[in-house]
Amino acid sequence: METSLHLRSSRGRQIPLRITPSTGDDPKEDDNLYCPLALEATSWAHMNGLQMVSQTDEAFIHAPFSLLPNKISRQEFEKVKRLAPVFNTLIDRIACDRTWLLDAIEPALATDAFTARLSSIMASTPHQRVRLGLHRSDYMMDDSAEGAVFKQIELNTIASSFGCISAKVTALHQFILKRFGSDPQLGPRVSEAIKTLNLDRVQDSTDKGFDMAAHVAEECLPLNPTLRDLPAALAAAHAQYGVPGSIIVFVVQPNERNVIDQRMLEQELWTTNNVRVRRLTLAELASHRSVLSGDGSDDDDRVLTVDGEEVSVVYFRAGYTPDDYPTDAEWKAREILERSTAVKCPSLAYHLAGTKIVQQAIAQPGQLERFLDPTEAAEVRTSFVGLHLVSTESMESSSEAGLAVQEALMHPERYVLKPQREGGGNNLYGAELADRIRSGLDLEDLVLMQRIMPPIEPAWFVRQGQVQRGMSLSELGVFGTFLAADDRVVINQYAGHILRTKQDGVDEGGVATGYSVLSSPLLN
Amino acid sequence: METSLHLRSSRGRQIPLRITPSTGDDPKEDDNLYCPLALEATSWAHMNGLQMVSQTDEAFIHAPFSLLPNKISRQEFEKVKRLAPVFNTLIDRIACDRTWLLDAIEPALATDAFTARLSSIMASTPHQRVRLGLHRSDYMMDDSAEGAVFKQIELNTIASSFGCISAKVTALHQFILKRFGSDPQLGPRVSEAIKTLNLDRVQDSTDKGFDMAAHVAEECLPLNPTLRDLPAALAAAHAQYGVPGSIIVFVVQPNERNVIDQRMLEQELWTTNNVRVRRLTLAELASHRSVLSGDGSDDDDRVLTVDGEEVSVVYFRAGYTPDDYPTDAEWKAREILERSTAVKCPSLAYHLAGTKIVQQAIAQPGQLERFLDPTEAAEVRTSFVGLHLVSTESMESSSEAGLAVQEALMHPERYVLKPQREGGGNNLYGAELADRIRSGLDLEDLVLMQRIMPPIEPAWFVRQGQVQRGMSLSELGVFGTFLAADDRVVINQYAGHILRTKQDGVDEGGVATGYSVLSSPLLN
Repeated sequence: METSLHLRSSRGRQIPLRITPSTGDDPKEDDNLYCPLALEATSWAHMNGLQMVSQTDEAFIHAPFSLLPNKISRQEFEKVKRLAPVFNTLIDRIACDRTWLLDAIEPALATDAFTARLSSIMASTPHQRVRLGLHRSDYMMDDSAEGAVFKQIELNTIASSFGCISAKVTALHQFILKRFGSDPQLGPRVSEAIKTLNLDRVQDSTDKGFDMAAHVAEECLPLNPTLRDLPAALAAAHAQYGVPGSIIVFVVQPNERNVIDQRMLEQELWTTNNVRVRRLTLAELASHRSVLSGDGSDDDDRVLTVDGEEVSVVYFRAGYTPDDYPTDAEWKAREILERSTAVKCPSLAYHLAGTKIVQQAIAQPGQLERFLDPTEAAEVRTSFVGLHLVSTESMESSSEAGLAVQEALMHPERYVLKPQREGGGNNLYGAELADRIRSGLDLEDLVLMQRIMPPIEPAWFVRQGQVQRGMSLSELGVFGTFLAADDRVVINQYAGHILRTKQDGVDEGGVATGYSVLSSPLLN
Repeated sequence: METSLHLRSSRGRQIPLRITPSTGDDPKEDDNLYCPLALEATSWAHMNGLQMVSQTDEAFIHAPFSLLPNKISRQEFEKVKRLAPVFNTLIDRIACDRTWLLDAIEPALATDAFTARLSSIMASTPHQRVRLGLHRSDYMMDDSAEGAVFKQIELNTIASSFGCISAKVTALHQFILKRFGSDPQLGPRVSEAIKTLNLDRVQDSTDKGFDMAAHVAEECLPLNPTLRDLPAALAAAHAQYGVPGSIIVFVVQPNERNVIDQRMLEQELWTTNNVRVRRLTLAELASHRSVLSGDGSDDDDRVLTVDGEEVSVVYFRAGYTPDDYPTDAEWKAREILERSTAVKCPSLAYHLAGTKIVQQAIAQPGQLERFLDPTEAAEVRTSFVGLHLVSTESMESSSEAGLAVQEALMHPERYVLKPQREGGGNNLYGAELADRIRSGLDLEDLVLMQRIMPPIEPAWFVRQGQVQRGMSLSELGVFGTFLAADDRVVINQYAGHILRTKQDGVDEGGVATGYSVLSSPLLN
């Protein structure tokens, strides 16, 4: 019986989990008022898997998050949701038009060895009959033009992350708003924070007993179906492949910090679809494990097996940066995967369709119309930021580019001047931008881009047990899932969203580093 | 657009989450074979809230757990499940028989100031009409007698912990067995581990294609309803109290490390029952926040409000140790809570019914029969460890005590000699035990107790990213929930379980310290 003493939990020698106001350079005096609410939120985060691996050590920490959701235009949110299947279609049609795709990439090949190698593998592998996309289109609100509109920052066709974990952020915000909105202790903080957002629909409500936060949660916080729809797309591709007992391979980086986001996909595939996932790095796939059947004479018969198990779907959360290919072994692995009959998410054609050079090409006049019907093309174009190739000619002409150059000389703050090639030098702003254009030197190397002027909103950043109020700007990611077999489209839909919020005036970025935090859109 | 660079996650500068074999004194060579399985398990733990606050810093870590469940006799498990409502009844009847209860405590009052103060508050407060118990009865398997049987270690009537988190451990073990049991890579580890348990029902199965681990998960891993039944009991008491909008107060220690276990209760109460919980320490309750209505003249009207909100239920996860009452303020708070009409879980009578002195009293011949019908009393008694008051008389007599003393002299390894009073000296074993009895000095102060000889089984301990095989002994906690209003019993049931597993030969204990780990029973 004496052992019982040792089996009981040791009580009373416990240390606190603090939530403290930030000790940064400019802590706001009222930050500590938000500590109790932040403690509720971080407890929720730890209980519900809103986690990532810390940058400074190997421990899991709560993912950095915004204590409350951030305001977004309802109309613009609906528009970019509507655009998700259109971008899915666009990517698929580009990928199926290899000639156009290779032509679009061609200008980059001389200077961009990474893209060149990807495209040479694609050119030597067969067209993909079954095509799966889990894309994420990123937008920022631009306040500079007539009425705020979402402008596309980039379109991710490989390793689109933060999907599953964003469903948890939405659930956290639901919890904060509904549980604490009318709480006598913490409710005033929630109401105060919501009021600073100046939402149109709750401005006038002064009714007693009206639970503003619950109303906001019901009416303004959209459902976020990532945790259902992203794994569902992978499962549908697995079913399309049609071999019972085959596995899905997640190609991962060796030291992934955002691992829970990936593990949630894996868990859903197992619990909902009974599909097993193996996580492997490109190096692991290269080391004698991955085998293609057949002798190469019949492209349709190159079944991929890993350690003897047939692979239905290869889902890439790695392989998008040259850093992921330190040796030829990783390249060999990518080639084996691409040459197999497994469904790739993405295929090389999808991967390449998401590169900057292709996105520049598609933005040129008439190109969207090649792939989309005119209405769709017009709506997509409204999301493109103005982008003009500068030239000596455009300096003088009344072309669109010419007009933009003239406006940039008058209002250089509305533009950024970028080198056309990756690694071709620094971006130029303001007076430097105007001087460079006026100099007339090497103008053909330059792209004049409209600068996005995002609205700046207050936010409460919660990072590793610290809460800090600050002004923020946000980027919305919209997920789309697409599955097609030959000409038959099986899935083409919006699949959820993620809002990332960054402190204004901080140059650093990235959720994993804690400079950006995960948030949800609050529709106005 | 340039801000997009900063909003993307920083990729490629990530560090590993390792799972390593233990670096302890005696690492087994094959421990590293279990690292991949342990990595799957810790990832699951972080994703699904199997967490606690670390002892060494303020970070959340995964709770220490056993990689696989531990073998327990099915028959004995069913017996202690059956005993849960019987112990619930026993506690309630003791608490309702104040005269007997105060008599039973009386011998401790002179030397135990803490129990004395609790009982004096109880004596001055009214009998509780509505009585709520969330009890946990702890057992260890005793291999020493004829056939292994569960013997009760203690009966916790206050702050019974690890209930909710144990449901997560069961879910983890379900996942490990079903997902990896037939996995080509990790399956052999799971099978090997199960085989070391020597389960009767899977000894003979050598069928090809027979998924032993899935079979074991289906047949031998019992459902664990804590996460449903513990909050349901609190919610039922709240409903019984019957005031819409009232809150439940969790009385907590200031620096709780097992906070997620409590938060899960809180989350279930909110999401399932829409009941709000406030967490407060006794000190916080004391500091001008807690108010009783009425002037004390009418005991039925002493409504408890905290910061103006009426309290339906007070659930204690603190207050069971003198350390929780550093000043008179905490005592005052306990008294206010006890004198209110809020439902206490537990009331002071329930709290005191769970003390060691009362459990010794109830073990005396004829006492169980006072409160239970003969069949129930007999079954409860089989779970009691042999406990005899030593005296000069018992040395010579053929009474039960006398026979035990004679057996102890012949087989001292089967007994432990304990001082009757708390803090009365060290326990004696072996030769020292026999010498002391033979000396005949101050025998009236001593209790001779049967020693529990638990079976020692292999286990894989997973603590903070380290996996280590070792021999283990386990303690089963069985939860029971009880709610009565006057003579009407509303709830009286088994409500789940927790197995804690401790490395054999390690003196230290406690889950929070990592010496014990959380596990699940595997029924044989």
